[in-house]
Amino acid sequence: MFFASDNASAVPAPVMAALLAANDGFAMPYGKDLRMDDLRGQIRALFESPEAAVYLVATGTAANALALASHCPPWGAVFCHRHAHIQEDECGAPEFFTNGAKLALVEGAHGKMTPETLAPVLERTGAGGVHGVQRGMLSITNVTEAGTVYFPAEVAALTALARAHGLPCHMDGARFANALVASGASPAEMTWRAGIDVLSLGGTKNGLLGVEAVVIFDPARAWEFELRRKRGGHLVSKGRYLAAQMQAYLDGGLWLTLAAQANAAAARLAAGILAQPGAALLHPVDANIIFAQWPAGGHAALQQAGAVYYPMPAAEGMEAARLVTSWSTTTADVDGFLAALAGALPG
Amino acid sequence: MFFASDNASAVPAPVMAALLAANDGFAMPYGKDLRMDDLRGQIRALFESPEAAVYLVATGTAANALALASHCPPWGAVFCHRHAHIQEDECGAPEFFTNGAKLALVEGAHGKMTPETLAPVLERTGAGGVHGVQRGMLSITNVTEAGTVYFPAEVAALTALARAHGLPCHMDGARFANALVASGASPAEMTWRAGIDVLSLGGTKNGLLGVEAVVIFDPARAWEFELRRKRGGHLVSKGRYLAAQMQAYLDGGLWLTLAAQANAAAARLAAGILAQPGAALLHPVDANIIFAQWPAGGHAALQQAGAVYYPMPAAEGMEAARLVTSWSTTTADVDGFLAALAGALPG
Amino acid sequence: MFFASDNASAVPAPVMAALLAANDGFAMPYGKDLRMDDLRGQIRALFESPEAAVYLVATGTAANALALASHCPPWGAVFCHRHAHIQEDECGAPEFFTNGAKLALVEGAHGKMTPETLAPVLERTGAGGVHGVQRGMLSITNVTEAGTVYFPAEVAALTALARAHGLPCHMDGARFANALVASGASPAEMTWRAGIDVLSLGGTKNGLLGVEAVVIFDPARAWEFELRRKRGGHLVSKGRYLAAQMQAYLDGGLWLTLAAQANAAAARLAAGILAQPGAALLHPVDANIIFAQWPAGGHAALQQAGAVYYPMPAAEGMEAARLVTSWSTTTADVDGFLAALAGALPG
Amino acid sequence: MFFASDNASAVPAPVMAALLAANDGFAMPYGKDLRMDDLRGQIRALFESPEAAVYLVATGTAANALALASHCPPWGAVFCHRHAHIQEDECGAPEFFTNGAKLALVEGAHGKMTPETLAPVLERTGAGGVHGVQRGMLSITNVTEAGTVYFPAEVAALTALARAHGLPCHMDGARFANALVASGASPAEMTWRAGIDVLSLGGTKNGLLGVEAVVIFDPARAWEFELRRKRGGHLVSKGRYLAAQMQAYLDGGLWLTLAAQANAAAARLAAGILAQPGAALLHPVDANIIFAQWPAGGHAALQQAGAVYYPMPAAEGMEAARLVTSWSTTTADVDGFLAALAGALPG
Repeated sequence: MFFASDNASAVPAPVMAALLAANDGFAMPYGKDLRMDDLRGQIRALFESPEAAVYLVATGTAANALALASHCPPWGAVFCHRHAHIQEDECGAPEFFTNGAKLALVEGAHGKMTPETLAPVLERTGAGGVHGVQRGMLSITNVTEAGTVYFPAEVAALTALARAHGLPCHMDGARFANALVASGASPAEMTWRAGIDVLSLGGTKNGLLGVEAVVIFDPARAWEFELRRKRGGHLVSKGRYLAAQMQAYLDGGLWLTLAAQANAAAARLAAGILAQPGAALLHPVDANIIFAQWPAGGHAALQQAGAVYYPMPAAEGMEAARLVTSWSTTTADVDGFLAALAGALPG
Repeated sequence: MFFASDNASAVPAPVMAALLAANDGFAMPYGKDLRMDDLRGQIRALFESPEAAVYLVATGTAANALALASHCPPWGAVFCHRHAHIQEDECGAPEFFTNGAKLALVEGAHGKMTPETLAPVLERTGAGGVHGVQRGMLSITNVTEAGTVYFPAEVAALTALARAHGLPCHMDGARFANALVASGASPAEMTWRAGIDVLSLGGTKNGLLGVEAVVIFDPARAWEFELRRKRGGHLVSKGRYLAAQMQAYLDGGLWLTLAAQANAAAARLAAGILAQPGAALLHPVDANIIFAQWPAGGHAALQQAGAVYYPMPAAEGMEAARLVTSWSTTTADVDGFLAALAGALPG
Repeated sequence: MFFASDNASAVPAPVMAALLAANDGFAMPYGKDLRMDDLRGQIRALFESPEAAVYLVATGTAANALALASHCPPWGAVFCHRHAHIQEDECGAPEFFTNGAKLALVEGAHGKMTPETLAPVLERTGAGGVHGVQRGMLSITNVTEAGTVYFPAEVAALTALARAHGLPCHMDGARFANALVASGASPAEMTWRAGIDVLSLGGTKNGLLGVEAVVIFDPARAWEFELRRKRGGHLVSKGRYLAAQMQAYLDGGLWLTLAAQANAAAARLAAGILAQPGAALLHPVDANIIFAQWPAGGHAALQQAGAVYYPMPAAEGMEAARLVTSWSTTTADVDGFLAALAGALPG
Repeated sequence: MFFASDNASAVPAPVMAALLAANDGFAMPYGKDLRMDDLRGQIRALFESPEAAVYLVATGTAANALALASHCPPWGAVFCHRHAHIQEDECGAPEFFTNGAKLALVEGAHGKMTPETLAPVLERTGAGGVHGVQRGMLSITNVTEAGTVYFPAEVAALTALARAHGLPCHMDGARFANALVASGASPAEMTWRAGIDVLSLGGTKNGLLGVEAVVIFDPARAWEFELRRKRGGHLVSKGRYLAAQMQAYLDGGLWLTLAAQANAAAARLAAGILAQPGAALLHPVDANIIFAQWPAGGHAALQQAGAVYYPMPAAEGMEAARLVTSWSTTTADVDGFLAALAGALPG
């Protein structure tokens, strides 16, 4: 009953098998082995983008910060949601890698920017000429930190505003597969067809040991990205072990299968919580993250039952929690959680 | 017959086994799992340094750049050999992570600084007061880029000069195990007892998939290091897979066994080359890197025999090469190389 | 009738005279002339702070950015008002000089933070451990961008919150003399006695050609500041011409006389505007900046009369403006403006 | 008898007069006054470059660092002489402003790079692909730190090598007027006609209170420069006082007159020193800087006579000095120095 983070899950068997298979003889280091060539082709095909540049790094923060720095000058503003991961959970990595760009925070219910909340921030930024920072780029997190999902049309509405100012657009897809599953969109529909220029394509939260891809749809930015990656200490030498993981992840749609499992577990968990008297969901549960509240008493019982998750501040007499499911969450985990909660709450 | 880089070798079985063993259930992310606690204790014991702070990252460039940035201000000079990895092979990562420190280059035969070459650079740096950069820190690479090894007394002679100016001292130990095996020194003798404050302890070149440790002997620097690591995108979420590799690497002295195999292969290869008429070693072969030259004709024969390595510029009528052995280099590889070379050179 | 900026005013005669007097023979460059020693003593006495470090730079942005960078690490958050000059008008200089610190924006009516608006931002910053930026420092602008003034007790209430977290506190005093005159506080009362560690002491907006002082009450930060200043290109060689200006500015209380003139002109202008039917002040006019609105029609008449100022967005049927007075604003300027406005508005 | 630095000299009367004349009424701040427009036209005409972008800053370090940062990426190498001002005397400002570019040091007698010393450094930089820093730009100091002068043909030979790699070329002209006078070249001949893209045009060392211009011959870089200048705290508000100085400096060729005076004083001083038995010049005296040596005994006598200058390390039994003349050095100063020296040395 582990719902604290999808980062805590183990790695599915096909990924481990691929790692073992890759462990054979010599391979050219620094992303120059044949496996990386294959993977590049695989991702280009999957995204219907024959020219896309594809790179691998070991963390999501690296993927995001390098993607931003390659598309936004130091004096640019990165428009993002107030609670975006790049704002709240990366210890200033975007500022560090961009050499001091500013994050311009946009409001929006349930973790989502809207054209109405984005437009005024976009308008007033840079209006003071040389005295203020300039409009730099847009960054959209999908799945959001609130567990909601942008559909392609919503992404397109935001990128249209940014592109009207000539800005490049980034998607932080740490949980990209979960967003695809939730929306039914294809990789291309969710990204470049909706105006995205560069994608952080997560793998770790959805089952890999530690690999994220960066997909750059405009290959003119590729060489700068490579230099920034090396300079950031993110060019791994034995690239075969990263490429092998990502290949296994994408092969036969494993990534979508894993994400579907996580999303389904979250849906079952959310429905079960909602069925408790006095309980409520604080955000729509579109993917694998749940924010819920229930009458006081649940935490103690859940803890005793061995459930692990992050409690959240709640109103008087209530308790709240953030719960994250993963590919490895079982029905037994979900039902065990729900039973413990039901037992604690006044029936 | 792959001698291009120790980064191209595969991973020994015990490391893969440890990875598989770690892939069980949930584990707290971001270095908070129990495996990391165990590893920290293991490294402290190995280095006889009960207070040392221990961190893992995925690349040697990250280990070095974070170690430097945590010990040297932006206006500091990092004293290092002219051909140090941090100067030539990290695309400016030290400058990036330190926010613009300057590398002050020190001469020295066979890749090694000496007190005689270091002292004048140390003396003249910072002598101009606020107008020039200040003395920042010392960085020693061991094994050097020339394949030579500093013995503890040599390290101590260099750090003594730096410490007389109050400077912290770093060792880039991307091939630390090879240096230990070559010198017979213990981890403590090679580091803090010789005046080293922070060590980049390599694992990848000596058999891991991609893990380097940073060992900070003064724990007062630890929290700053953690923030810099996160901000640099180098805090991996599923830390168990890094910790498991490093544990297996150190368990039962595997790291030294692997390094000894690499060093022995290099010694056999060097001796064999030297036995060829007209051949010579360009640097002493202390560890697992060989710089050699031989009369023209060798490259073609070796290439035809399937040997992979980096040719180097050479004098008229001669050919030169950089050859690197690894834990997985076999006697057959070495002897095959030597046979091909012997066949090509005039007997 | 120039009310666009106090930066547009000329320089009072005593300052020009001091410049001419300083133009005699040779003087040691880089702040090492005797004039700088005298000025340091003068400022220490004025601030009743015998150990304070005193430096001169040519712009307010430099003063602020260097003051922040010397007191806040790259992973720190600088707490400031949402409309602070460091946030809106310095093109990211604080981010650049700190190497990527984040500005944490605090709300507050009329340009002023309050303990109530500051406390929650302070509390939630850094609560996520290594994942988010850490609490860095506090920066208070006085006179604020809205033209209001913090009294010493208000400053102390804010700094007390910051100091409870161990944070240093900065005051952006681009209009420090105006704030002193408005509040009746002494330099010491407004700064270190109220918890301020470092002050940007403006001169340019209040009559100098281009000089700002940075006063650091904790001299332990002085050497780092000097290195950052040099490295930022802000150590001027012919320091005598800066020191001479600042000396003349402070001699005999000229700075307070000039600020009193500017504040009095603003008070007269504000009162005159308020007397117009339908007019209102948008913020209290504590110093030399006025935000006012009046019924539509005023802009055209004022422009025709030769008044120069910045119009602001206003409600339907209204017009709004930002007006800044300076030491050189005359009663005739003020009365001419008021007459033009009165003539345009329906009596 | 002040020969320590040309930064220590006072300001000639026409410059002070221009400052007084500019001190009249209101002027738009931040370089938007009419005076700046006039100056821009004046410099464009002088350089025969109708499209050049022209900016003013207060220090030479700012001019250089901003010029470099606007033309060189963070992962670039700036090729410059080992003793260039940007390497030795700016406390890492180039690294700071470029976000960590590396200075690639080029040897050369008497402070001058030659095609022979530049070419190999240029060739080997970037040869390692993504692992090393890339070729970034060339920076030539004229007058050099050794007091020598590059003639246009020498500049062109260096820039041709850089341009063959597509690199932009910078000239640090802190003593540009002295170089023009020494070489007889026109501003255009010394800069864009010889392959220079961006010039730091010094004023302070040659008589201004503190103004340097940056002339960018490719206006496509102008807006980035403006943003970097503001962000660096180098956009002064009361620009009229900078523009007025620079106008007076260029009007009627005053800058060349002042430089000619300084160069002539240096020539007289150098000739006089050379006439002493046992004395020698360590570098050719092309402009207003002298490096000389003489038999021991001179320092004491000169100091007693009131001469101020920097002694240099010298061989046993000898003394050496760096002497700098300025526009305000008088014949009496020179002859007084020579008399004191002559009196001290064995006749």
